[in-house]
Amino acid sequence: MDNPIDPVQRLVNELKKLPGIGIKSAQRLAFHLILRPGEECLALAEAISHLKADLVLCSRCNNVSGMDPCQICTSASRDSRVVCVVEEPCNVLSIERTGVYKGLYHVLHGAISPINGIGPEELKLKNLFERFKEGRVEEVIVATNPTSEGESTALYLSKLIKPLSIKITRIASGIPVGSDLEYADTVTISRALTGRQSF
Amino acid sequence: MDNPIDPVQRLVNELKKLPGIGIKSAQRLAFHLILRPGEECLALAEAISHLKADLVLCSRCNNVSGMDPCQICTSASRDSRVVCVVEEPCNVLSIERTGVYKGLYHVLHGAISPINGIGPEELKLKNLFERFKEGRVEEVIVATNPTSEGESTALYLSKLIKPLSIKITRIASGIPVGSDLEYADTVTISRALTGRQSF
Repeated sequence: MDNPIDPVQRLVNELKKLPGIGIKSAQRLAFHLILRPGEECLALAEAISHLKADLVLCSRCNNVSGMDPCQICTSASRDSRVVCVVEEPCNVLSIERTGVYKGLYHVLHGAISPINGIGPEELKLKNLFERFKEGRVEEVIVATNPTSEGESTALYLSKLIKPLSIKITRIASGIPVGSDLEYADTVTISRALTGRQSF
Repeated sequence: MDNPIDPVQRLVNELKKLPGIGIKSAQRLAFHLILRPGEECLALAEAISHLKADLVLCSRCNNVSGMDPCQICTSASRDSRVVCVVEEPCNVLSIERTGVYKGLYHVLHGAISPINGIGPEELKLKNLFERFKEGRVEEVIVATNPTSEGESTALYLSKLIKPLSIKITRIASGIPVGSDLEYADTVTISRALTGRQSF
């Protein structure tokens, strides 16, 4: 059956290239699609093929979007006084899912990582400071990951932003909600302790 | 960001419909595709959109294929004296992956399940018996699943095929290779014992 002409085999081969999808998952997905209505398959196929064509980087916040400036940057309901700095476009989606944040974003497209040869000049920082010059930004929330790369980036940003008399904050690190102290590593517990809040 | 115009959101919404893919997996896949070359995305999109259009049921074995009769039925290197009966087209792929089976297949597209209102007349049995009339088939291997539905189907087939003086066999049930007796259920252990083989 390993025939590239075979439509099922062809799809399985393509699906296998996706992260976290092995041969069995690829086959399950392929046979699922066979049983779905034709329009559902077409909708998926079109969403994939249009992805790259329709996608642009927002010139203000560097997020991937269908338009420039993006929906978030142009939205009247967002608080333009707060900018949340994240490493990657997918982090914007993670924060948007919570529904609690109403400010704007800035995507760095990376984090400082000397071991991988990524310095501050590799990050998309230029248009962030251009936004500060407009004088509307009052707070920068640094939401880079709590990894050594993310922390270095946060530290670097704080050194640059503090002199501009803009408030700069860092997202909290600690025990994840629903988790147990028993399973948390020592660094996370230390962070949870130093970042403790009064009732 | 829950904007249907947004190409990322649109793809995430489509991917979420797939089995075993939640919102987080859908986002991970979408952001993976953003970073892949355009031709890789297009290859996947085309494989999906061509799937239904290019797919036919083989009129001999009922397997899904790009041609009728399918590659297996028309292959000169396959042993046409043996027919392996399976429930679904995906089962053919599972057996083909092993590389040990060189006979033909017959896909029933289901199994007898009175609780779901599926009787023998709902299964694609007619062309199986037409194949027997050609007189080439010497053995039928019943590879329906070892579930109550698969077992009922196997029993039903054995009653119909035995009078035709064609050898009919059933795939073995037992402890999976690499597993442990400790984790096997009692029915599986009983089957492993009754199906024991001499060295």
